[in-house]
Amino acid sequence: MKRPAVDVCFTPREIRPVEIAVVVDVLRATSTIVQAFAVGYSRVVCCKSVATARELRAPGRVLAGENACVRVPDFELGNSPAVMASDGRRGEEIVLATTNGSPAVVAASRAAERVLIASLLNLRPVVAALPTDADVAIVCSGTDGRPALEDVYVAGRLVAALGRVPSDAARVAERVAGGYGAPLEPLAASEDGARLRATGQERDISWCARESVLELVPEVWSTSDGTAAVGAPRKA
Amino acid sequence: MKRPAVDVCFTPREIRPVEIAVVVDVLRATSTIVQAFAVGYSRVVCCKSVATARELRAPGRVLAGENACVRVPDFELGNSPAVMASDGRRGEEIVLATTNGSPAVVAASRAAERVLIASLLNLRPVVAALPTDADVAIVCSGTDGRPALEDVYVAGRLVAALGRVPSDAARVAERVAGGYGAPLEPLAASEDGARLRATGQERDISWCARESVLELVPEVWSTSDGTAAVGAPRKA
Repeated sequence: MKRPAVDVCFTPREIRPVEIAVVVDVLRATSTIVQAFAVGYSRVVCCKSVATARELRAPGRVLAGENACVRVPDFELGNSPAVMASDGRRGEEIVLATTNGSPAVVAASRAAERVLIASLLNLRPVVAALPTDADVAIVCSGTDGRPALEDVYVAGRLVAALGRVPSDAARVAERVAGGYGAPLEPLAASEDGARLRATGQERDISWCARESVLELVPEVWSTSDGTAAVGAPRKA
Repeated sequence: MKRPAVDVCFTPREIRPVEIAVVVDVLRATSTIVQAFAVGYSRVVCCKSVATARELRAPGRVLAGENACVRVPDFELGNSPAVMASDGRRGEEIVLATTNGSPAVVAASRAAERVLIASLLNLRPVVAALPTDADVAIVCSGTDGRPALEDVYVAGRLVAALGRVPSDAARVAERVAGGYGAPLEPLAASEDGARLRATGQERDISWCARESVLELVPEVWSTSDGTAAVGAPRKA
Protein backbone atom coordinates (compact mmCIF):
# COMPACT_ATOMS: atom_id res chain seq x y z
CA MET A 1 0.00 0.00 0.00
CA LYS A 2 1.35 3.41 -0.88
CA ARG A 3 2.10 5.79 1.96
CA PRO A 4 0.06 8.95 1.47
CA ALA A 5 2.02 12.12 0.68
CA VAL A 6 1.76 15.72 1.74
CA ASP A 7 2.96 18.57 -0.44
CA VAL A 8 2.85 22.33 0.00
CA CYS A 9 2.36 24.88 -2.78
CA PHE A 10 3.81 28.22 -1.68
CA THR A 11 1.68 29.99 -4.26
CA PRO A 12 -1.37 28.83 -6.26
CA ARG A 13 0.78 28.81 -9.39
CA GLU A 14 2.37 25.59 -8.11
CA ILE A 15 -0.88 23.63 -7.87
CA ARG A 16 -0.83 20.24 -9.58
CA PRO A 17 -3.48 17.51 -9.77
CA VAL A 18 -4.03 15.94 -6.33
CA GLU A 19 -6.66 14.03 -4.38
CA ILE A 20 -7.28 16.69 -1.72
CA ALA A 21 -6.23 20.33 -1.71
CA VAL A 22 -6.34 22.33 1.50
CA VAL A 23 -6.40 26.05 0.77
CA VAL A 24 -4.86 28.48 3.27
CA ASP A 25 -5.10 32.27 3.27
CA VAL A 26 -4.93 32.90 6.96
CA LEU A 27 -4.71 36.70 6.53
CA ARG A 28 -7.54 36.71 5.73
CA ALA A 29 -9.77 35.02 3.15
CA THR A 30 -9.93 31.49 4.53
CA SER A 31 -10.36 32.85 8.06
CA THR A 32 -13.23 34.95 6.72
CA ILE A 33 -14.83 31.92 5.04
CA VAL A 34 -14.71 29.87 8.24
CA GLN A 35 -16.07 32.83 10.19
CA ALA A 36 -18.93 33.26 7.68
CA PHE A 37 -20.21 29.76 8.41
CA ALA A 38 -19.80 30.38 12.14
CA VAL A 39 -22.20 33.35 11.95
CA GLY A 40 -24.76 31.30 10.00
CA TYR A 41 -24.23 31.82 6.29
CA SER A 42 -25.07 28.67 4.35
CA ARG A 43 -22.72 29.13 1.41
CA VAL A 44 -19.66 31.13 0.38
CA VAL A 45 -19.18 31.60 -3.35
CA CYS A 46 -15.47 32.21 -3.95
CA CYS A 47 -14.81 34.29 -7.05
CA LYS A 48 -11.71 34.66 -9.18
CA SER A 49 -12.28 38.42 -9.44
CA VAL A 50 -14.26 41.39 -8.16
CA ALA A 51 -15.99 41.59 -11.55
CA THR A 52 -17.18 37.99 -11.25
CA ALA A 53 -18.59 38.72 -7.79
CA ARG A 54 -20.51 41.76 -9.07
CA GLU A 55 -22.19 39.62 -11.73
CA LEU A 56 -23.56 37.40 -8.95
CA ARG A 57 -25.36 40.18 -7.09
CA ALA A 58 -28.83 38.96 -6.08
CA PRO A 59 -31.26 39.17 -3.16
CA GLY A 60 -29.98 37.18 -0.18
CA ARG A 61 -26.42 37.42 -1.40
CA VAL A 62 -23.91 39.55 0.49
CA LEU A 63 -20.94 40.73 -1.53
CA ALA A 64 -17.71 40.71 0.43
CA GLY A 65 -14.12 41.31 -0.52
CA GLU A 66 -11.14 43.55 -0.75
CA ASN A 67 -8.78 45.19 -3.15
CA ALA A 68 -5.34 46.21 -1.81
CA CYS A 69 -6.49 45.11 1.66
CA VAL A 70 -9.52 47.45 1.86
CA ARG A 71 -13.23 46.79 1.20
CA VAL A 72 -14.36 47.04 -2.41
CA PRO A 73 -16.44 50.27 -2.25
CA ASP A 74 -19.74 48.86 -3.60
CA PHE A 75 -19.50 45.62 -1.58
CA GLU A 76 -21.42 45.18 1.67
CA LEU A 77 -18.49 43.67 3.53
CA GLY A 78 -14.71 43.71 3.32
CA ASN A 79 -12.55 40.68 4.02
CA SER A 80 -12.43 41.00 7.81
CA PRO A 81 -13.33 37.95 9.90
CA ALA A 82 -13.55 40.17 12.99
CA VAL A 83 -16.11 42.44 11.30
CA MET A 84 -17.90 39.36 9.93
CA ALA A 85 -18.27 38.08 13.49
CA SER A 86 -19.46 41.34 15.02
CA ASP A 87 -21.72 42.11 12.09
CA GLY A 88 -23.74 38.89 12.20
CA ARG A 89 -25.57 37.31 9.27
CA ARG A 90 -27.00 39.74 6.69
CA GLY A 91 -28.27 37.25 4.13
CA GLU A 92 -28.17 33.63 2.96
CA GLU A 93 -24.80 33.52 1.33
CA ILE A 94 -21.55 35.37 0.90
CA VAL A 95 -20.08 36.12 -2.50
CA LEU A 96 -16.38 36.58 -1.82
CA ALA A 97 -13.76 38.24 -4.03
CA THR A 98 -10.29 38.81 -2.61
CA THR A 99 -6.91 39.38 -4.21
CA ASN A 100 -5.33 36.04 -3.35
CA GLY A 101 -7.55 33.72 -1.32
CA SER A 102 -10.73 33.41 -3.33
CA PRO A 103 -8.87 32.94 -6.65
CA ALA A 104 -6.73 30.28 -4.92
CA VAL A 105 -9.87 28.35 -3.95
CA VAL A 106 -11.09 28.57 -7.56
CA ALA A 107 -7.69 27.44 -8.90
CA ALA A 108 -7.45 24.55 -6.41
CA SER A 109 -10.92 23.39 -7.42
CA ARG A 110 -9.72 22.83 -10.96
CA ALA A 111 -6.81 20.63 -9.86
CA ALA A 112 -8.07 18.63 -6.87
CA GLU A 113 -10.81 16.08 -6.39
CA ARG A 114 -11.73 17.68 -3.06
CA VAL A 115 -10.91 21.14 -1.70
CA LEU A 116 -11.05 22.01 2.01
CA ILE A 117 -10.72 25.48 3.52
CA ALA A 118 -8.22 25.86 6.36
CA SER A 119 -7.21 28.60 8.75
CA LEU A 120 -5.93 28.65 12.29
CA LEU A 121 -9.52 29.12 13.48
CA ASN A 122 -10.37 25.59 12.29
CA LEU A 123 -6.94 23.94 12.27
CA ARG A 124 -7.70 20.84 14.35
CA PRO A 125 -11.06 20.08 12.68
CA VAL A 126 -9.39 20.23 9.23
CA VAL A 127 -6.72 17.76 10.32
CA ALA A 128 -9.40 15.45 11.72
CA ALA A 129 -11.43 15.65 8.50
CA LEU A 130 -8.63 14.51 6.19
CA PRO A 131 -8.78 10.79 5.30
CA THR A 132 -5.54 9.17 6.37
CA ASP A 133 -4.98 7.39 3.05
CA ALA A 134 -5.25 10.42 0.75
CA ASP A 135 -2.50 12.48 -0.85
CA VAL A 136 -2.85 16.08 0.29
CA ALA A 137 -1.55 19.33 -1.17
CA ILE A 138 -1.70 22.37 1.06
CA VAL A 139 -2.15 25.39 -1.16
CA CYS A 140 -0.89 28.68 0.26
CA SER A 141 -2.66 31.63 -1.33
CA GLY A 142 0.39 33.85 -0.92
CA THR A 143 0.38 37.52 -1.82
CA ASP A 144 0.41 38.70 -5.40
CA GLY A 145 2.14 35.55 -6.59
CA ARG A 146 4.75 35.52 -3.82
CA PRO A 147 4.90 33.29 -0.72
CA ALA A 148 3.28 34.73 2.41
CA LEU A 149 4.99 33.89 5.71
CA GLU A 150 1.74 33.34 7.61
CA ASP A 151 0.39 30.88 5.04
CA VAL A 152 3.64 28.90 5.04
CA TYR A 153 3.44 28.80 8.85
CA VAL A 154 -0.10 27.36 8.82
CA ALA A 155 0.86 24.91 6.06
CA GLY A 156 3.72 23.74 8.26
CA ARG A 157 1.38 23.27 11.19
CA LEU A 158 -0.82 21.09 8.98
CA VAL A 159 2.17 19.09 7.68
CA ALA A 160 3.31 18.44 11.24
CA ALA A 161 -0.16 17.31 12.30
CA LEU A 162 -0.80 15.11 9.25
CA GLY A 163 2.28 12.89 9.47
CA ARG A 164 2.38 11.81 5.81
CA VAL A 165 5.42 11.48 3.55
CA PRO A 166 6.52 15.10 3.09
CA SER A 167 7.79 16.66 -0.13
CA ASP A 168 10.74 19.04 0.16
CA ALA A 169 8.29 21.96 0.15
CA ALA A 170 6.34 20.32 2.97
CA ARG A 171 9.56 19.91 4.96
CA VAL A 172 10.34 23.58 4.41
CA ALA A 173 6.92 24.60 5.75
CA GLU A 174 7.23 22.23 8.72
CA ARG A 175 10.58 23.74 9.69
CA VAL A 176 9.09 27.23 9.48
CA ALA A 177 6.22 26.26 11.76
CA GLY A 178 8.65 24.62 14.17
CA GLY A 179 10.66 27.82 14.33
CA TYR A 180 7.85 29.87 15.87
CA GLY A 181 6.20 29.77 19.25
CA ALA A 182 2.70 31.27 19.26
CA PRO A 183 0.90 31.71 15.90
CA LEU A 184 0.61 35.44 16.50
CA GLU A 185 4.35 35.78 15.96
CA PRO A 186 4.54 34.82 12.24
CA LEU A 187 1.21 36.53 11.50
CA ALA A 188 2.39 39.79 13.03
CA ALA A 189 5.86 39.52 11.42
CA SER A 190 4.48 38.96 7.91
CA GLU A 191 4.20 41.53 5.13
CA ASP A 192 0.41 41.04 5.16
CA GLY A 193 0.39 41.73 8.89
CA ALA A 194 2.20 45.01 8.19
CA ARG A 195 -0.36 45.91 5.53
CA LEU A 196 -3.22 45.26 7.96
CA ARG A 197 -1.60 47.50 10.57
CA ALA A 198 -1.06 50.18 7.91
CA THR A 199 -4.76 50.10 7.00
CA GLY A 200 -6.02 50.16 10.59
CA GLN A 201 -7.14 46.52 10.59
CA GLU A 202 -4.67 45.07 13.09
CA ARG A 203 -7.54 43.51 15.04
CA ASP A 204 -7.77 40.88 12.30
CA ILE A 205 -4.22 39.70 13.00
CA SER A 206 -4.94 38.56 16.55
CA TRP A 207 -8.41 37.39 15.46
CA CYS A 208 -6.92 35.09 12.83
CA ALA A 209 -4.15 33.87 15.18
CA ARG A 210 -6.63 32.06 17.45
CA GLU A 211 -6.29 28.34 17.05
CA SER A 212 -8.97 25.67 16.62
CA VAL A 213 -11.81 27.77 18.03
CA LEU A 214 -14.38 26.88 15.34
CA GLU A 215 -15.49 23.31 14.67
CA LEU A 216 -16.07 23.86 10.97
CA VAL A 217 -14.53 22.35 7.84
CA PRO A 218 -15.76 24.27 4.80
CA GLU A 219 -15.43 22.36 1.54
CA VAL A 220 -15.94 23.21 -2.12
CA TRP A 221 -19.21 21.71 -3.26
CA SER A 222 -19.44 22.83 -6.84
CA THR A 223 -17.60 24.96 -9.33
CA SER A 224 -18.49 26.93 -12.39
CA ASP A 225 -16.54 29.29 -14.60
CA GLY A 226 -14.56 31.54 -12.28
CA THR A 227 -16.30 30.51 -9.05
CA ALA A 228 -16.18 27.77 -6.44
CA ALA A 229 -19.14 27.36 -4.09
CA VAL A 230 -18.11 26.43 -0.57
CA GLY A 231 -20.57 24.91 1.83
CA ALA A 232 -21.60 22.13 4.20
CA PRO A 233 -19.23 22.67 7.02
CA ARG A 234 -19.27 19.39 8.88
CA LYS A 235 -18.97 19.19 12.61
CA ALA A 236 -15.65 17.51 13.12
CA MET B 1 18.63 56.11 2.24
CA LYS B 2 16.71 52.98 1.45
CA ARG B 3 17.56 49.89 3.43
CA PRO B 4 18.62 47.16 1.03
CA ALA B 5 16.32 44.17 0.74
CA VAL B 6 16.82 40.45 0.45
CA ASP B 7 14.32 38.18 -1.28
CA VAL B 8 14.34 34.45 -1.99
CA CYS B 9 12.89 32.78 -5.08
CA PHE B 10 12.07 29.16 -4.26
CA THR B 11 12.13 28.33 -7.95
CA PRO B 12 13.54 30.22 -10.97
CA ARG B 13 9.95 30.89 -12.11
CA GLU B 14 9.70 33.51 -9.35
CA ILE B 15 12.65 35.62 -10.55
CA ARG B 16 11.90 39.31 -10.94
CA PRO B 17 14.18 42.22 -11.92
CA VAL B 18 16.75 42.86 -9.18
CA GLU B 19 20.21 44.40 -8.73
CA ILE B 20 22.01 41.20 -7.76
CA ALA B 21 20.85 37.61 -8.08
CA VAL B 22 22.66 34.84 -6.20
CA VAL B 23 21.92 31.46 -7.79
CA VAL B 24 21.94 28.35 -5.60
CA ASP B 25 21.81 24.72 -6.74
CA VAL B 26 23.77 23.15 -3.97
CA LEU B 27 23.01 19.59 -5.17
CA ARG B 28 24.81 20.00 -7.46
CA ALA B 29 25.25 22.52 -10.29
CA THR B 30 26.49 25.56 -8.38
CA SER B 31 28.78 23.37 -6.28
CA THR B 32 30.12 21.93 -9.55
CA ILE B 33 30.71 25.42 -10.97
CA VAL B 34 32.66 26.53 -7.91
CA GLN B 35 34.65 23.28 -7.99
CA ALA B 36 35.42 23.79 -11.70
CA PHE B 37 37.20 27.06 -10.97
CA ALA B 38 38.98 25.45 -8.04
CA VAL B 39 40.55 22.85 -10.36
CA GLY B 40 41.65 25.56 -12.79
CA TYR B 41 39.02 25.97 -15.49
CA SER B 42 38.85 29.60 -16.65
CA ARG B 43 35.19 29.71 -17.65
CA VAL B 44 31.94 27.79 -17.17
CA VAL B 45 29.33 28.31 -19.87
CA CYS B 46 25.93 27.55 -18.32
CA CYS B 47 23.41 26.31 -20.85
CA LYS B 48 19.63 26.25 -20.77
CA SER B 49 19.61 22.76 -22.29
CA VAL B 50 21.69 19.74 -23.23
CA ALA B 51 21.06 20.59 -26.91
CA THR B 52 22.53 24.07 -26.44
CA ALA B 53 25.62 22.58 -24.80
CA ARG B 54 26.14 20.14 -27.69
CA GLU B 55 26.15 23.04 -30.16
CA LEU B 56 29.07 24.57 -28.26
CA ARG B 57 31.36 21.54 -28.61
CA ALA B 58 34.86 22.78 -29.54
CA PRO B 59 38.51 22.00 -28.77
CA GLY B 60 39.40 23.01 -25.22
CA ARG B 61 35.79 22.81 -24.13
CA VAL B 62 34.70 20.06 -21.78
CA LEU B 63 31.01 19.20 -21.90
CA ALA B 64 29.54 18.43 -18.49
CA GLY B 65 26.03 17.80 -17.30
CA GLU B 66 23.30 15.44 -16.31
CA ASN B 67 19.85 14.29 -17.22
CA ALA B 68 17.78 12.68 -14.43
CA CYS B 69 20.82 12.92 -12.14
CA VAL B 70 23.17 10.87 -14.38
CA ARG B 71 25.83 11.98 -16.88
CA VAL B 72 24.62 12.79 -20.40
CA PRO B 73 26.11 9.81 -22.33
CA ASP B 74 28.08 11.81 -24.90
CA PHE B 75 29.38 14.38 -22.37
CA GLU B 76 32.88 14.12 -20.89
CA LEU B 77 31.73 14.83 -17.35
CA GLY B 78 28.55 14.54 -15.32
CA ASN B 79 27.50 17.09 -12.72
CA SER B 80 29.57 15.77 -9.83
CA PRO B 81 31.81 18.21 -7.96
CA ALA B 82 33.57 15.29 -6.29
CA VAL B 83 34.46 13.76 -9.68
CA MET B 84 35.38 17.24 -10.97
CA ALA B 85 37.86 17.57 -8.11
CA SER B 86 39.44 14.14 -8.49
CA ASP B 87 39.48 14.35 -12.28
CA GLY B 88 41.44 17.59 -12.51
CA ARG B 89 41.36 20.01 -15.42
CA ARG B 90 40.77 18.48 -18.88
CA GLY B 91 40.53 21.67 -20.94
CA GLU B 92 40.13 25.44 -20.82
CA GLU B 93 36.45 25.71 -20.08
CA ILE B 94 33.41 23.76 -18.98
CA VAL B 95 30.16 23.81 -20.94
CA LEU B 96 27.54 22.87 -18.36
CA ALA B 97 23.98 21.65 -18.97
CA THR B 98 21.97 20.43 -15.99
CA THR B 99 18.25 20.02 -15.40
CA ASN B 100 17.77 22.87 -12.95
CA GLY B 101 20.95 24.76 -12.05
CA SER B 102 22.39 25.83 -15.38
CA PRO B 103 18.98 27.01 -16.73
CA ALA B 104 18.50 28.94 -13.46
CA VAL B 105 21.77 30.79 -14.04
CA VAL B 106 20.63 31.63 -17.58
CA ALA B 107 17.21 32.81 -16.32
CA ALA B 108 18.71 34.90 -13.52
CA SER B 109 21.04 36.58 -16.01
CA ARG B 110 18.06 37.94 -17.88
CA ALA B 111 16.53 39.53 -14.76
CA ALA B 112 19.46 40.75 -12.67
CA GLU B 113 22.21 43.30 -13.23
CA ARG B 114 24.76 40.96 -11.63
CA VAL B 115 24.58 37.21 -11.02
CA LEU B 116 26.77 35.42 -8.50
CA ILE B 117 27.08 31.65 -8.05
CA ALA B 118 26.70 30.33 -4.51
CA SER B 119 27.02 26.99 -2.79
CA LEU B 120 28.05 25.90 0.64
CA LEU B 121 31.60 25.44 -0.67
CA ASN B 122 31.93 29.21 -1.15
CA LEU B 123 29.28 30.52 1.28
CA ARG B 124 31.37 33.01 3.25
CA PRO B 125 33.19 34.46 0.20
CA VAL B 126 29.82 35.09 -1.51
CA VAL B 127 28.51 36.94 1.53
CA ALA B 128 31.69 39.02 1.66
CA ALA B 129 31.44 39.85 -2.05
CA LEU B 130 27.94 41.32 -1.90
CA PRO B 131 27.87 45.14 -1.69
CA THR B 132 26.02 46.14 1.47
CA ASP B 133 23.77 48.67 -0.32
CA ALA B 134 22.37 46.38 -3.03
CA ASP B 135 19.04 44.60 -3.18
CA VAL B 136 19.68 40.87 -3.45
CA ALA B 137 17.49 38.02 -4.68
CA ILE B 138 18.64 34.53 -3.84
CA VAL B 139 17.44 32.24 -6.61
CA CYS B 140 16.96 28.61 -5.64
CA SER B 141 17.19 26.36 -8.66
CA GLY B 142 14.78 23.86 -7.15
CA THR B 143 13.94 20.56 -8.81
CA ASP B 144 11.72 20.35 -11.85
CA GLY B 145 9.91 23.57 -10.93
CA ARG B 146 9.43 22.65 -7.26
CA PRO B 147 11.32 23.94 -4.23
CA ALA B 148 14.33 21.87 -3.13
CA LEU B 149 14.95 21.67 0.60
CA GLU B 150 18.73 21.96 0.32
CA ASP B 151 18.56 25.13 -1.80
CA VAL B 152 16.09 26.77 0.62
CA TYR B 153 18.48 25.87 3.45
CA VAL B 154 21.44 27.56 1.74
CA ALA B 155 19.27 30.55 0.83
CA GLY B 156 18.35 30.88 4.49
CA ARG B 157 22.00 30.74 5.51
CA LEU B 158 22.68 33.61 3.09
CA VAL B 159 19.67 35.61 4.36
CA ALA B 160 20.89 35.20 7.94
CA ALA B 161 24.41 36.29 7.02
CA LEU B 162 23.35 39.27 4.88
CA GLY B 163 21.17 41.08 7.41
CA ARG B 164 19.03 43.08 4.96
CA VAL B 165 15.29 43.72 5.08
CA PRO B 166 13.83 40.26 4.42
CA SER B 167 10.79 39.51 2.29
CA ASP B 168 8.36 36.90 3.60
CA ALA B 169 10.08 34.32 1.39
CA ALA B 170 13.45 35.32 2.86
CA ARG B 171 12.03 34.91 6.37
CA VAL B 172 10.78 31.45 5.42
CA ALA B 173 14.24 30.43 4.21
CA GLU B 174 15.93 31.89 7.28
CA ARG B 175 13.64 29.89 9.60
CA VAL B 176 14.42 26.72 7.65
CA ALA B 177 18.16 27.31 7.98
CA GLY B 178 17.75 28.04 11.68
CA GLY B 179 15.94 24.73 12.12
CA TYR B 180 18.92 22.60 11.14
CA GLY B 181 22.24 21.94 12.80
CA ALA B 182 24.94 20.82 10.37
CA PRO B 183 24.39 21.42 6.61
CA LEU B 184 24.65 17.72 5.93
CA GLU B 185 21.27 17.22 7.61
CA PRO B 186 19.05 19.10 5.11
CA LEU B 187 21.14 17.94 2.15
CA ALA B 188 20.80 14.29 3.17
CA ALA B 189 17.09 14.69 4.01
CA SER B 190 16.20 16.25 0.66
CA GLU B 191 14.58 14.55 -2.31
CA ASP B 192 17.68 15.33 -4.37
CA GLY B 193 19.79 13.69 -1.68
CA ALA B 194 17.66 10.57 -2.02
CA ARG B 195 18.09 10.62 -5.80
CA LEU B 196 21.88 10.84 -5.44
CA ARG B 197 21.89 7.87 -3.09
CA ALA B 198 19.65 5.94 -5.49
CA THR B 199 22.11 6.57 -8.35
CA GLY B 200 25.22 5.68 -6.35
CA GLN B 201 26.46 9.26 -6.07
CA GLU B 202 26.06 9.79 -2.33
CA ARG B 203 29.65 11.01 -2.07
CA ASP B 204 28.48 14.29 -3.64
CA ILE B 205 26.13 14.95 -0.70
CA SER B 206 28.88 15.17 1.88
CA TRP B 207 31.15 16.87 -0.67
CA CYS B 208 28.61 19.66 -1.21
CA ALA B 209 27.86 19.97 2.53
CA ARG B 210 31.34 21.32 3.30
CA GLU B 211 31.15 24.98 4.17
CA SER B 212 33.31 27.88 2.98
CA VAL B 213 36.22 25.73 1.86
CA LEU B 214 36.82 27.50 -1.49
CA GLU B 215 37.62 31.22 -1.72
CA LEU B 216 35.88 31.70 -5.04
CA VAL B 217 32.95 33.85 -6.14
CA PRO B 218 32.00 32.92 -9.70
CA GLU B 219 30.00 35.58 -11.50
CA VAL B 220 28.19 35.76 -14.83
CA TRP B 221 30.31 37.79 -17.24
CA SER B 222 28.29 37.66 -20.40
CA THR B 223 25.16 36.12 -21.80
CA SER B 224 23.90 35.10 -25.19
CA ASP B 225 20.84 33.25 -26.35
CA GLY B 226 20.41 30.31 -24.00
CA THR B 227 23.79 30.59 -22.29
CA ALA B 228 25.46 32.53 -19.49
CA ALA B 229 29.24 32.56 -19.31
CA VAL B 230 30.56 32.45 -15.74
CA GLY B 231 34.09 33.48 -14.95
CA ALA B 232 36.53 35.62 -13.00
CA PRO B 233 36.26 34.16 -9.59
CA ARG B 234 37.63 36.84 -7.29
CA LYS B 235 39.64 36.01 -4.26
CA ALA B 236 37.43 37.19 -1.41
